[in-house]
Amino acid sequence: MRMVDIIRKKREGCSLTDEELTFFVKGYTDGSIPDYQASALLMAICLNGMDDRETAFLTMEMAASGDSLDLSAIKGQKVDKHSTGGVGDKTTLIVAPIVAACGVPVAKMSGRGLGHTGGTIDKLESIPGYRVNLSESEFIRQVNRISIGLIGSSKNLAPADKRIYALRDATSTVESIPLIASSIMSKKLCSGCDCILLDVKVGSGAFMKTLPEAQKLAKTMVSIGKHAGKKTVALLTDMEAPLGLAVGNSLELWEAIELLKGGGDPTLTSLCLELSAWMLFLADEGPLDRCRETAQNVLDSGAALQKFRQLVEAQGGDLQSIDNLSLLPCALYRREIKAESDGYLVRMDAKRCGIASSILGAGRERKEDDIDYGAGIRLERKIGDQVQTGDVIAVLHSNTPEKFGDAEEVFRGGLRISQTPPPKRPIILGTVK
Amino acid sequence: MRMVDIIRKKREGCSLTDEELTFFVKGYTDGSIPDYQASALLMAICLNGMDDRETAFLTMEMAASGDSLDLSAIKGQKVDKHSTGGVGDKTTLIVAPIVAACGVPVAKMSGRGLGHTGGTIDKLESIPGYRVNLSESEFIRQVNRISIGLIGSSKNLAPADKRIYALRDATSTVESIPLIASSIMSKKLCSGCDCILLDVKVGSGAFMKTLPEAQKLAKTMVSIGKHAGKKTVALLTDMEAPLGLAVGNSLELWEAIELLKGGGDPTLTSLCLELSAWMLFLADEGPLDRCRETAQNVLDSGAALQKFRQLVEAQGGDLQSIDNLSLLPCALYRREIKAESDGYLVRMDAKRCGIASSILGAGRERKEDDIDYGAGIRLERKIGDQVQTGDVIAVLHSNTPEKFGDAEEVFRGGLRISQTPPPKRPIILGTVK
Repeated sequence: MRMVDIIRKKREGCSLTDEELTFFVKGYTDGSIPDYQASALLMAICLNGMDDRETAFLTMEMAASGDSLDLSAIKGQKVDKHSTGGVGDKTTLIVAPIVAACGVPVAKMSGRGLGHTGGTIDKLESIPGYRVNLSESEFIRQVNRISIGLIGSSKNLAPADKRIYALRDATSTVESIPLIASSIMSKKLCSGCDCILLDVKVGSGAFMKTLPEAQKLAKTMVSIGKHAGKKTVALLTDMEAPLGLAVGNSLELWEAIELLKGGGDPTLTSLCLELSAWMLFLADEGPLDRCRETAQNVLDSGAALQKFRQLVEAQGGDLQSIDNLSLLPCALYRREIKAESDGYLVRMDAKRCGIASSILGAGRERKEDDIDYGAGIRLERKIGDQVQTGDVIAVLHSNTPEKFGDAEEVFRGGLRISQTPPPKRPIILGTVK
Repeated sequence: MRMVDIIRKKREGCSLTDEELTFFVKGYTDGSIPDYQASALLMAICLNGMDDRETAFLTMEMAASGDSLDLSAIKGQKVDKHSTGGVGDKTTLIVAPIVAACGVPVAKMSGRGLGHTGGTIDKLESIPGYRVNLSESEFIRQVNRISIGLIGSSKNLAPADKRIYALRDATSTVESIPLIASSIMSKKLCSGCDCILLDVKVGSGAFMKTLPEAQKLAKTMVSIGKHAGKKTVALLTDMEAPLGLAVGNSLELWEAIELLKGGGDPTLTSLCLELSAWMLFLADEGPLDRCRETAQNVLDSGAALQKFRQLVEAQGGDLQSIDNLSLLPCALYRREIKAESDGYLVRMDAKRCGIASSILGAGRERKEDDIDYGAGIRLERKIGDQVQTGDVIAVLHSNTPEKFGDAEEVFRGGLRISQTPPPKRPIILGTVK
């Protein structure tokens, strides 16, 4: 088998066989296929596509290229949840304890933030003492004991994906639904779970800007999951505006705990309950409506909050900071962003909000960058709210006040106040099963 | 300017600006753009195409990436002729002296054969003593003195094309009309000529297998030539069967000299006269019909043969071998290929004929390979001829008789004898101006 022939086939619009896909992934991972052949194939895939079988097989080969987590020692159906990345997305911090409080084990590896999107692991690390690196056996014992574990990934998961992704980034071959889907799903297939719930974000703050694109991505990912023998469902959810009222690591943690304590933004609450219900449903906990009730019950009863406290305690985090949120990392400086006219807030661009938060210190441009856990943005108003000139719309938080100017400019560029109220946009835009 | 953005633009089907094309050619030639980005762009070009302006500008940048020949010291309009490569194509050996005998200077650099196609320089080198490497000043002086010079290329012509071509070969991005056209024309634009006559071969022995493909290539090349300020015309000519009666270096030289002496295959003669007429026409020697007459006259009068003798003498070749063709390199062994049934010869595949000749020793697989000047195939019958079982169709010539078996098998695989005569196929299939 020769790589030039595989490239030619895809250039001519043909489907690649399983053997050809294996040859490519193995050869590119072990270095026998050079970058310049891989990038030619990736461009041909970008322009000529891949069918469901090819996409699923490519993904499974990428997943098989490195380590994977073995969760078979954990009893019960393990459900993973994955968000395609957004701004203010702290749902894992809320959904994981809800689901675990219902008795369904949540053994989840999460990632760090990059660019304008945040990552669950950074948010958890803003709890003083919280250990994100447990050994595999420690992790499994913990989940068997308290039904929950949230850790970072220390394993060599899907190295083929890492190599391919870096090449795609350098060759403008990122924007391809089959390649995006295979990149995401290759890592999910290593996570050891039985079922996967995907939260595919749609809108300015998301990778997919439009509903049809997001639907296509969701369908492709669901198809990959099913090909790999995992129950998979995707929700399409809004990311036109930031999710909830906080953007930034400890600010989002704060918001998540407030929600578990019974407060919190109603939109965020409804999304978290829906995600929890679907996870329970995938874990065979009964019909979806009953799962919705169960989730609501453990949130209302405080059982979910209790589960979160158990998690933090088990992973070495400081419980006092959970009970007294003012002990969480906090920025020294604030700047209020005030409305400059009267009317309805009709736009608060999620991506600009994420970039502004990153400028304030909450995000990183490169993997090596340090982050400022206390930095970020607290939103005082949401889209649809009526505002008057001088009303505080948001408060910027930072330890580097010289960044306020740039951050405000970016943030304000995403705001629009209009005389007519915006149409209501639901948080959940669709489901792909 | 960033290469990723240029790749993205082409992936999205947009036209690249002159500045972007310059950035790519310069950066890829000086090594600042890596192979993997270049191959992604080339695949995007393969699939999304380039318009005439892009193709011409890319070609001119490739031409400008290295040396070029300066023929301004030669008086008159310099016309170059280029064949896209075929089997048995010895037209340059005939056309160049015809045109020069009409007083139009022919200062031509030619190439060597590769794969199943031959090269003019190899054919000339089968004349004992013929020097293909003249210095530039020696070459110019010779053309000013006797109106003709045929040399190989010792210059660093279009190094960007060399790099790009090697990468295309390894990444299945060869089959793209704009890239094929730019590769051919980038070298032609360095040749110092004022006008270009292209002989675009069509059929099994050519790179372009069908007339529509060849027309597209011809149009693209003519457009490039005109963009670069050179009068350019293309003839589309048949390469379904080998051209003339000989394939192989000294065998083709023999055939060319026989033709200049007044003998020769009528099809080959008519093609050579038409090519000569067009070259004269491009050099402003009057209306095409008068150019046809002029060409015919110098052939008939022996002036073209005389010009060829002058060329050989000027470049150090042995004139005796021109006058007495049996002194040319000659293979020790022969094998006759006989008809195995009665009927009309309806097919004699050019590509198979070229491969068989190469097996016999006349061609090279890699640039470094030596060739056997005497090896090749002499055709005794042509398509359309009536044959009887046992009639000799062709004679294989080689110094390595152990190759006869393989060569015969390949050659025979391209023959077909039928009860009905084939339709007449003209040698000239079209003109693109």
